[in-house]
Amino acid sequence: MDKLQQLLTLDLLPGIGCYRLRQKLKGLSPFELFNCTELELVALGFNAPQRAIIQAPYQSVITSVTTWLNGAGNRRVVSFFDSEYPPILKQISSPPLLLFCQGNVELLTRPQLAIVGSRAPTITARETAKLLAHDLAFSGLTITSGLATGIDSCAHIGAISAQGTTIAVLGSGLKNIYPRSNVDLAANISQTGLLVSEFWPDVLPKAPNFPRRNRIVSGLSLGVVVVEAAQRSGSLITARLAAEQNREVFAVPGSVNNPKVQGCHKLINQGAKLVATAADILEELPIDSFDVAAKEHKIHSRLSPQSLLPFDIILDSVGFETTSIDQVVERSKMSIEIVLQQLLTLELAGLIVLGSGGYIRISGGG
Amino acid sequence: MDKLQQLLTLDLLPGIGCYRLRQKLKGLSPFELFNCTELELVALGFNAPQRAIIQAPYQSVITSVTTWLNGAGNRRVVSFFDSEYPPILKQISSPPLLLFCQGNVELLTRPQLAIVGSRAPTITARETAKLLAHDLAFSGLTITSGLATGIDSCAHIGAISAQGTTIAVLGSGLKNIYPRSNVDLAANISQTGLLVSEFWPDVLPKAPNFPRRNRIVSGLSLGVVVVEAAQRSGSLITARLAAEQNREVFAVPGSVNNPKVQGCHKLINQGAKLVATAADILEELPIDSFDVAAKEHKIHSRLSPQSLLPFDIILDSVGFETTSIDQVVERSKMSIEIVLQQLLTLELAGLIVLGSGGYIRISGGG
Repeated sequence: MDKLQQLLTLDLLPGIGCYRLRQKLKGLSPFELFNCTELELVALGFNAPQRAIIQAPYQSVITSVTTWLNGAGNRRVVSFFDSEYPPILKQISSPPLLLFCQGNVELLTRPQLAIVGSRAPTITARETAKLLAHDLAFSGLTITSGLATGIDSCAHIGAISAQGTTIAVLGSGLKNIYPRSNVDLAANISQTGLLVSEFWPDVLPKAPNFPRRNRIVSGLSLGVVVVEAAQRSGSLITARLAAEQNREVFAVPGSVNNPKVQGCHKLINQGAKLVATAADILEELPIDSFDVAAKEHKIHSRLSPQSLLPFDIILDSVGFETTSIDQVVERSKMSIEIVLQQLLTLELAGLIVLGSGGYIRISGGG
Repeated sequence: MDKLQQLLTLDLLPGIGCYRLRQKLKGLSPFELFNCTELELVALGFNAPQRAIIQAPYQSVITSVTTWLNGAGNRRVVSFFDSEYPPILKQISSPPLLLFCQGNVELLTRPQLAIVGSRAPTITARETAKLLAHDLAFSGLTITSGLATGIDSCAHIGAISAQGTTIAVLGSGLKNIYPRSNVDLAANISQTGLLVSEFWPDVLPKAPNFPRRNRIVSGLSLGVVVVEAAQRSGSLITARLAAEQNREVFAVPGSVNNPKVQGCHKLINQGAKLVATAADILEELPIDSFDVAAKEHKIHSRLSPQSLLPFDIILDSVGFETTSIDQVVERSKMSIEIVLQQLLTLELAGLIVLGSGGYIRISGGG
């Protein structure tokens, strides 16, 4: 049994997480456990079900992960004991033992900022989230969020539009991207960014796993920006976890007539910094931690986003007023599949935005 | 020379305000000064020009005030030494010696809240200011502001629409209402509310006097609410003065895309409480100070505002979409003067609102 299989086995131990596992190890490496006798495992405090698994791992379950690892793209399992595991994430009260990763694993240890918010935001908040993510990514920060619809998606898209880097932390296994409408976005993120989950690849989306996921979003990040959140929003959980983890908490204000922003206003009155621009956020962060990354990134970013886009026909089919997807299909004479794929690419490049009822063009194009 | 003439004389002393006058009095009443000999005045520290005025008042100037006092409405000069002078205003570093008043002088000592902001606010901010003023006035607070265009006017109008009370502190003399567009509003305020100025009635509007006026707006109030203020707004001066005077400072947030709200956001990050509703404000104020006033007021407020309004023809000429004043004139077949006057009355009653390009009806009417 190799080290990966041993780590996967430890992740399956019932009633014990990463924190208590490390307590029981008492200085041993996790791999030495597998050379221990029954009596030694008892002495370390492992109970009978735990000892049974250590001594006879579920080989078939573990094989499912190794099969996944052999799939396309850069797939990795990063453990708490690996150098790629982010030190900042080790500081939280319940760090995951394993991170299932697809994409650029190096991003894990780069300075990150989380942008989270409503799953059904206003068009203004969508634009604000994208702009903040764009500008912060351009400044060298990696933008971390949860791949949900709404603000999370806008955060990822904004970072990509700046040719920056972004991490999506999933509440399901990486074989089960959720929501399904973000499958294309996830594929895009995995190319230059990173998909991360503490759940094994086969795990289906389940409601209780999503709040758990939030502690990783904040735990990976120097701070959390909440863009739009109602009074009872999951984003407020992320903000609370961030505060408990001693991360900076930022909130974007909005009109007092917009009920979707009440959660942000509450956070501000509880001490979150009110922010309107990327500069408001950057001035609160330890700049030394990412200025080198920023310099490297800015050289890379000189490429015009338009130069990457051969989709003139689709772009020309989107008006400066809201244009439905049906209209784009009709005007471009292209299939719905190609239209949807290319509209996403155009949105990622910051040339069009998704409003209610369709897309709006915001740039003259290439 | 009567006591009023003596107080007016003291207000004319060069190089000496209320604070230093009281220091020099050393326990004497201000009126006793006029019985002092030259040597006694020297001993109290009055210089030659000051002594000359005490001993030979400018009778003609004083007569201009007494003439004004004999005009229509309740006109009064309230001095620092009168029981009507608000104790809360005595606490500020440079309280005015005299307050020229027109209207209900009793309001001076009632609990007040100031609402200030941009002279050119967005329609959203206008509505917010009116609604806050309405709800706070209905709760028994007197709404104090500066009679400027924009948020100040909305604050006064909102209070009146709740049949509450409002105080306008002017930066010019009460014979010179400024801006002229607010002459009708000032007349309305003087009927159930109060117009106040530290300037003599003949003083013309002069730019330096308006920031000075702001210290009285905040000095009269338990707290100051800033509804919309750009980065360099006079309202931020009022907020700073309020903080220096240990008054509560409140600020209403807005969209990060609205530059007119940047000053409010700055105040919030400096410690002002973010507020969206009257309840957010009331919970910070010492409720005992105005609950009796509230109870008295609520009984009075049971009258429907519509019952006071015979202007059905004008109201019916205003649509639920923006309606220009020309359209109202055409539809109502009434003169422009009557239309303007009655539109103001309808606005004060909360039945219509002024948007860009005209009025919008917001109520079914009586």
